[in-house]
Amino acid sequence: MSTVNHQVRLAARPSGLPRATDWSLTTEGVPDPAEGQFVVAVSHVSIDPAMRGWMNAVRSYVPPVEIGAVMRAGAVGRVAASAHPGFAVGDAVYGVFGVQEYALSDGRGVITIDTSLAAPSTYLGALGTTGLTAYFGLLDTGKLQEGDTVVVSGAAGAVGSVAGQIAKVKGARVIGIAGGPEKCRVLTEEFGFDAAIDYRAGNVRAALREHAPRGVDVFFDNVGGEILDDVLTRLARGARVVICGAISQYNETQARGPANYQMLIVARASMTGMLVFDYQDQYPQAMAELAGWLRDGKIVSREHVVHGSVADFPETLLMLFDGVNTGKLVLALDGS
Amino acid sequence: MSTVNHQVRLAARPSGLPRATDWSLTTEGVPDPAEGQFVVAVSHVSIDPAMRGWMNAVRSYVPPVEIGAVMRAGAVGRVAASAHPGFAVGDAVYGVFGVQEYALSDGRGVITIDTSLAAPSTYLGALGTTGLTAYFGLLDTGKLQEGDTVVVSGAAGAVGSVAGQIAKVKGARVIGIAGGPEKCRVLTEEFGFDAAIDYRAGNVRAALREHAPRGVDVFFDNVGGEILDDVLTRLARGARVVICGAISQYNETQARGPANYQMLIVARASMTGMLVFDYQDQYPQAMAELAGWLRDGKIVSREHVVHGSVADFPETLLMLFDGVNTGKLVLALDGS
Repeated sequence: MSTVNHQVRLAARPSGLPRATDWSLTTEGVPDPAEGQFVVAVSHVSIDPAMRGWMNAVRSYVPPVEIGAVMRAGAVGRVAASAHPGFAVGDAVYGVFGVQEYALSDGRGVITIDTSLAAPSTYLGALGTTGLTAYFGLLDTGKLQEGDTVVVSGAAGAVGSVAGQIAKVKGARVIGIAGGPEKCRVLTEEFGFDAAIDYRAGNVRAALREHAPRGVDVFFDNVGGEILDDVLTRLARGARVVICGAISQYNETQARGPANYQMLIVARASMTGMLVFDYQDQYPQAMAELAGWLRDGKIVSREHVVHGSVADFPETLLMLFDGVNTGKLVLALDGS
Repeated sequence: MSTVNHQVRLAARPSGLPRATDWSLTTEGVPDPAEGQFVVAVSHVSIDPAMRGWMNAVRSYVPPVEIGAVMRAGAVGRVAASAHPGFAVGDAVYGVFGVQEYALSDGRGVITIDTSLAAPSTYLGALGTTGLTAYFGLLDTGKLQEGDTVVVSGAAGAVGSVAGQIAKVKGARVIGIAGGPEKCRVLTEEFGFDAAIDYRAGNVRAALREHAPRGVDVFFDNVGGEILDDVLTRLARGARVVICGAISQYNETQARGPANYQMLIVARASMTGMLVFDYQDQYPQAMAELAGWLRDGKIVSREHVVHGSVADFPETLLMLFDGVNTGKLVLALDGS
């Protein structure tokens, strides 16, 4: 165990796309756990679109990250020192440990994970809040029914790729929207989507008419912007639009609303926001179901793992907004 | 009975605010009813924001009014001639009779009304699709609960004024948003709202913070635009936004979407479109309940009746978009 803890702290609130100078790299000693505490050696940091929102000085569903605080992040690691009866040295754990090498914890919000069942990074993907977001967003908020036509935006991304696969497991017809031919290939060939639409190639509405001729029953939206407006024109009667995220808008200084929202009237449709944290009491049952599907090969968890150090956090986060990743973007703290 | 039928027919599809020249006045003979038909002498024409949408060449929840066709309108009148077993001369009826003095009908969608119970114009207001829209929008789509804080936009208008009163009957705290001090006075003094916000006076968000300090549980929106964006910032956890209409947008050539729709995530809220026609099988029960509330003085139906002829239709419709009316706007065909 090192005696030094490298950390990434928020240094400035960005306007638009974040820059590396919006964070500072700091170094401090590895903390000693007091009674009821333990220290985690972080191995994998979750890189999430929501991080951009946490940098704004706006109280949302969680408070903003304060200037000078360690950047908030979900992560997995192993207990390196413990004075907590529930966590022993060597335990593999998930928690909101932040972008740092060592985190002090009192165990709140921390769960023990079984790395013999799946790789640590998978607990940030299909078996983590990523997979749980897809699960509850689709099944509870989206009220998915067998035979539904489902459209997923950001479909090659972390949540989208799992959402589409769950929809297939549940007997839906699934159309994914993603950027570029390679992602679209992955959607149909690796994730088993019925069709893929490359929004960069142009006419999303025409492609929706082709692939969803009877309209869209569930739209799982991670993107917002023009894609949301396009799908709104193709809703089936009684459609459910799940607002999970809006990655196209997070770096805009003037957010854009869906100009076609009046289509909700025409289709008698709903648009509902969801947050996975509301389902914590149902996590164990959902994780068991997701783990079963993974084991049986009904879904695959794909993680895009960047190997590096905490210093690589800023540019890894920017990969998300450039749409570089396919599957869950993870920073593994095992590089130089 | 006259032998001449004056009619208003659509002449052009407007861009932006309609002009009188978008319709033409035509005259034809009063039709003779064939077997299974009857003729209605129209007395009161319903003037509705939705009429603007029907003028566009867009298939929506109903087909557009074709160029050259009689302008679509709900109306009440009396049967003037009948060869239909279900409708006798003298019967008072409601139907989609159009902007004309005499309408030929086969009885589909026509209901007999009891004008000893309420004035004919009230069957276009609280006892008509106006009141039914408020009823089902609030109670079904909005899932109103006793103790909820309810905000209604276009609150002095036809649907809004009834929606707010139903919310009061059901034990909610009700805040209306309307334009100008006189409408706001009517909201609190005549319709019994708990508070009124004059959006023309400025800061709607600050007024919402004052009147709905714990957030908005149900927002019944008839207006869209900036008011929708303002209310989205004040939603309570689990709020329901009922999209009934968007009168601020109907004459815009570039519709505006709610830039703050991501607040649906923060509040885990929903935004749902509704159309009253979906509830036709429940009309009788709802009309009976509304009639009971009217009789008991628990709600009032206010109609703004313009006395004139079908030739007054264009300028009467424009009154809606100028926000002239308080309560249901009706054109009574009893003037010069």
